[in-house]
Amino acid sequence: MTFDLKPYLVAQATLVEAALKTILSDVTSPQEITRPPRLLDAMRHGALNGGKRLRPILLLECARLLGRSDEGILQAACALELIHCYSLVHDDLPAMDDDDLRRGQPTVHKAYDEATAILAGDALLTLAFDIITEEAIHEDPSVRLRLSRELSRAAGIGGMAGGQMLDLESEHRQRTEAEIRLLQSMKTGALLRYACRAGAILSNADDADVERLTRFGEVTGLAFQLADDLLDVEASPEAMGKATGKDAEAGKATLVGLWGVDKTRQELDRLSTEAETLLEPYGDAAGTLTALADFIVNRSS
Amino acid sequence: MTFDLKPYLVAQATLVEAALKTILSDVTSPQEITRPPRLLDAMRHGALNGGKRLRPILLLECARLLGRSDEGILQAACALELIHCYSLVHDDLPAMDDDDLRRGQPTVHKAYDEATAILAGDALLTLAFDIITEEAIHEDPSVRLRLSRELSRAAGIGGMAGGQMLDLESEHRQRTEAEIRLLQSMKTGALLRYACRAGAILSNADDADVERLTRFGEVTGLAFQLADDLLDVEASPEAMGKATGKDAEAGKATLVGLWGVDKTRQELDRLSTEAETLLEPYGDAAGTLTALADFIVNRSS
Repeated sequence: MTFDLKPYLVAQATLVEAALKTILSDVTSPQEITRPPRLLDAMRHGALNGGKRLRPILLLECARLLGRSDEGILQAACALELIHCYSLVHDDLPAMDDDDLRRGQPTVHKAYDEATAILAGDALLTLAFDIITEEAIHEDPSVRLRLSRELSRAAGIGGMAGGQMLDLESEHRQRTEAEIRLLQSMKTGALLRYACRAGAILSNADDADVERLTRFGEVTGLAFQLADDLLDVEASPEAMGKATGKDAEAGKATLVGLWGVDKTRQELDRLSTEAETLLEPYGDAAGTLTALADFIVNRSS
Repeated sequence: MTFDLKPYLVAQATLVEAALKTILSDVTSPQEITRPPRLLDAMRHGALNGGKRLRPILLLECARLLGRSDEGILQAACALELIHCYSLVHDDLPAMDDDDLRRGQPTVHKAYDEATAILAGDALLTLAFDIITEEAIHEDPSVRLRLSRELSRAAGIGGMAGGQMLDLESEHRQRTEAEIRLLQSMKTGALLRYACRAGAILSNADDADVERLTRFGEVTGLAFQLADDLLDVEASPEAMGKATGKDAEAGKATLVGLWGVDKTRQELDRLSTEAETLLEPYGDAAGTLTALADFIVNRSS
C-alpha cells in the first residue's frame, strides 16, 4: 500500500452512510403519498448498518480516477448500495440463506418479521431506480438512462438475482468449476463490475477506458469472491459479524473447496497482478484504487 | 357502454401478453450474463398468466386519447405490468397473504418454491426498470427518465409497497375510514393513478391534461378497490379464480365492511359519474376509456 487506506475507507463509508441516511429520511418525494414508519425503519435497518460500502467506494474511486470529483457521483454510488442492501435483506430470509445475524446485528426479518423484510427489500430495490435518475448524477439524461438500465441488468435475472438462483439451485450437489465461476460472476461479480464501469461512464470516459475499468471490476469481483470464500473457511464468526463455515455446512461447493487454500491464494495473487496492470496507464492517480483492490484481496473481515 | 368492450379488452390484453412474452424470452440483453431457466420460468409463471391487464390497458388508452398510437407505448405499459405482476408474486407468499391460487393456477411459490418466488418477484421488479428506459417509449430521454422515476415512486415505499405494509400492519385490528383510504390509495391506487398519468406524459400532454388524467386515475383506483371489496364479499371463488371472503376472514377492515353493500354501491356510482365528467372535454374520443372505467366498476371477476 502506498498510503494508509483504512482511515480513507472509513471516511468514504461515512460519506456514503450519511447520503443513504438522507435518502432514507421520512420526507416524502413528489408523487409519494407517505412513507410508513415501520417500513422505513426496516429499510434503514437493512441499509444503515455500518457496512464497508465497497461497491459505492469502487464507483466513486473509478469516477474520480477519470476526472469526476463533484458530489453528484455520490448519488449513483448510493443507488448501487441500495441494490446491494436489498439483496442482503432478501438473501437472509428463512426461505433463502436463513441468516439471523448480519454485521453482528439481527437481520431484518429477525428484528421485524418476514413480511416486513420482503417489503423492505422490495422498497430498497425500487428506491434505487428513483435515486439513479437524480439530475446531479449526470447532466446528460441519456447517460442517466444508461446508468439506470445497466444497473437493472447487473441486478436482475441476467446478473445478481440470476446468480442467487443458480446458487440456490446447485447448493446440495457437486458443482463444476465452470458452474461456480458462472454463478459467482452473476451473484457477486455483476454489481462489482457495474461499480467500476459506472464510475467510468459517469466521467464521460471513452470506450477504451470504460472497457478497461469494466475488466478491472471483473477481476476485482473474482478476487472479492475468492477472498470471501477463504474467510468463510478461515475466519471466526466474531471477526465476520455473521456465521462462518456455512458454505461447507450447506454443501456449497466453492472454488476454495475445489482447489484448496494454497491454489486459491495463488489465484488471488494472479488477480492482484492483473488488477495492478490494468491500472498502470493511470500512474500515480490510481494509487487509491490500487490500494483498494489490494485491500479487497487481503481483508480479514 | 357505447360499444362492446369485451372483445376489445381481450385483444388489448393479448397484445400486452405477447409483448411480455418477448420481454421474458431467454435471449439475454447486452450486459446480461445468462438468464437461468428456472428463474425465467418462474417469472413467466408470474407474469404470463392471462391477467386482465387493466393497468397497461389504462395506460395505452390514456396515451391514445391524447394522441400517441405507435407501438412504443406498449413497452411502457409492459414495464408497469411487470411491477404489478411482481407485487402479486410477493403478496401471495406465505409470510404475506399466503395464497395458493391465482387466476385458478398455483401461485409461484406453490408451483416452484418460496426462494424462487422471492427471486422471481425481485427480477420482475428489476426488469421493469430496464424496460421503462426503452428508446421506443419516448424520443426524449428526459421523458423516459420522468416515467422511470414516477414508476419507482408509485411502486415504492411512498406508494404500492408502503400500502402493502400499512395493510399488513393493521390487518388484525379495527381501521378508521381514513386509514383504509390511505392504504388503498397506496396499495392499489398508486399504480392505477400512474397508468393514467404515464399515458398522458407519453403523449406530451400539457400540465392540465396530465393533472386531469391523474385525477381520472385516482377516481378509477378508488372505484377499482371498492368493486374489488364488493367482489370479495359477493363473488364465488370459481368466478374469481382465487379464494374469496378472505378479507373478512383475515379481519381486514374494508370500506364495504364499514359502509355495507348499499352505501358502497352509491359511492361507486358517484365515482363513475366523476370519471365520466373528467373525460367529457375529450368528447367521443374518450368512448373507450369511459367504457373501460365503467367495466372496472361493474366487473364480475
